[in-house]
Amino acid sequence: MPRIVKHPELRREELLDHAQALFLTHGYDKASLNDVIGAAGISKGAFYHYFPSKEALLEALAGRFAKQALAGVQDIFADPALDPLGRLNALLAKSRQAKIETAAEAWALFETLFRPENLVLFHRINLAASASFSPVLVEIIRQGVEDGTFRTFDPEGVADIVMQFGMATHDVIAKAFASGSDADLDVAIEALEKRVRLYEIALDRILGLPDGSIRIGEPGYVRAAMTARRATLSPSAAAASQKSR
Amino acid sequence: MPRIVKHPELRREELLDHAQALFLTHGYDKASLNDVIGAAGISKGAFYHYFPSKEALLEALAGRFAKQALAGVQDIFADPALDPLGRLNALLAKSRQAKIETAAEAWALFETLFRPENLVLFHRINLAASASFSPVLVEIIRQGVEDGTFRTFDPEGVADIVMQFGMATHDVIAKAFASGSDADLDVAIEALEKRVRLYEIALDRILGLPDGSIRIGEPGYVRAAMTARRATLSPSAAAASQKSR
Repeated sequence: MPRIVKHPELRREELLDHAQALFLTHGYDKASLNDVIGAAGISKGAFYHYFPSKEALLEALAGRFAKQALAGVQDIFADPALDPLGRLNALLAKSRQAKIETAAEAWALFETLFRPENLVLFHRINLAASASFSPVLVEIIRQGVEDGTFRTFDPEGVADIVMQFGMATHDVIAKAFASGSDADLDVAIEALEKRVRLYEIALDRILGLPDGSIRIGEPGYVRAAMTARRATLSPSAAAASQKSR
Repeated sequence: MPRIVKHPELRREELLDHAQALFLTHGYDKASLNDVIGAAGISKGAFYHYFPSKEALLEALAGRFAKQALAGVQDIFADPALDPLGRLNALLAKSRQAKIETAAEAWALFETLFRPENLVLFHRINLAASASFSPVLVEIIRQGVEDGTFRTFDPEGVADIVMQFGMATHDVIAKAFASGSDADLDVAIEALEKRVRLYEIALDRILGLPDGSIRIGEPGYVRAAMTARRATLSPSAAAASQKSR
């Protein structure tokens, strides 16, 4: 029987599908690389041809999520009714919507990144995810500078600041999950909502816009994104959380 | 002979002095915990009473550096000639001056933090260092909001953004040192200088001030801080660097 040779890009996507399914079922920390290799039905050597490690799988999954979040972003550029501020807000709304829609899955896959020992991996995966987002942001800021809507000498630098704002929420989220109590989650949600308001105004001003121009959050957004994690708790963890009330 | 019992705080400072001297002579990575314990002439058990690890020594040294950098900060608050913006600029000038004065020593001690594998330690040490700096910053911002000089609803949040700006330079610096060539160092210095200008204007605007109000850098500051590292190269490393040109 002739060996079936699949296109490498297709094979890579399939491996990611297997990894995602296993990580969703068992959690990233519990699923092993051998599980993924077994599910895909390939040799270890073939696997390493595509990914050097389990961490690289998670990084690639994050990249895929980021790309999905940006699907249809060309519509924003094609829409003649949108000025640069409208484009920026449409981009942020799209990213928000994607985050809410995929929140339960994303928590199941990426929650491990909020463990203190995984800070390096978080940093690496955040860079991978922002590699898709950042060029779009830079392009919109540049258009705004050109037509006089935005006022900055450094569009790339401002895009980096936006990415930093995202990174900086890591510690608040990590702390909320480390404790595991509902009261601490509420405190964390409130702190994050306040921080989102600060970042909105900071970004308005950094771009020379009146306060209230840019929408990073919307009412209920932070709570919806944070509480979507509950659904991903394993039955035993959910029971333990129930008991501790 | 009676055993000499030293005051714990004094003993702790002495341990830090020994660690600092050894790290400066041999480099943090090469000096071992046993070297420090041997130089201090105490038992391992006694050492662990003060510090849980070699990393904790580095963290404590960073805290000491930060405190030294803030020595005399009370003068800023006592000076009736300074308004909140004047105080903020005096604080930033003091921190700049301390960084330049201690730059060669600081590179010798903390350069290891810019290795990719030490990102977690960098993060931890940065938090320790900002624990001294942040409350002073918050106090000045609060005074400025009260007297109407600054315009923000979240002084703590703005102080956090300032700390993030500092953290965010990590990757640029790490990249510059990873390559080790003079050309890359020049590129990194230029990128950092541009970034400092962006952060100055961003902070002006976040606080509702006209562009050009806040001084984070000054001409030559970034270059002076970055090139101070050259003096800390060991003779063999300097020779290797010479050869590779």
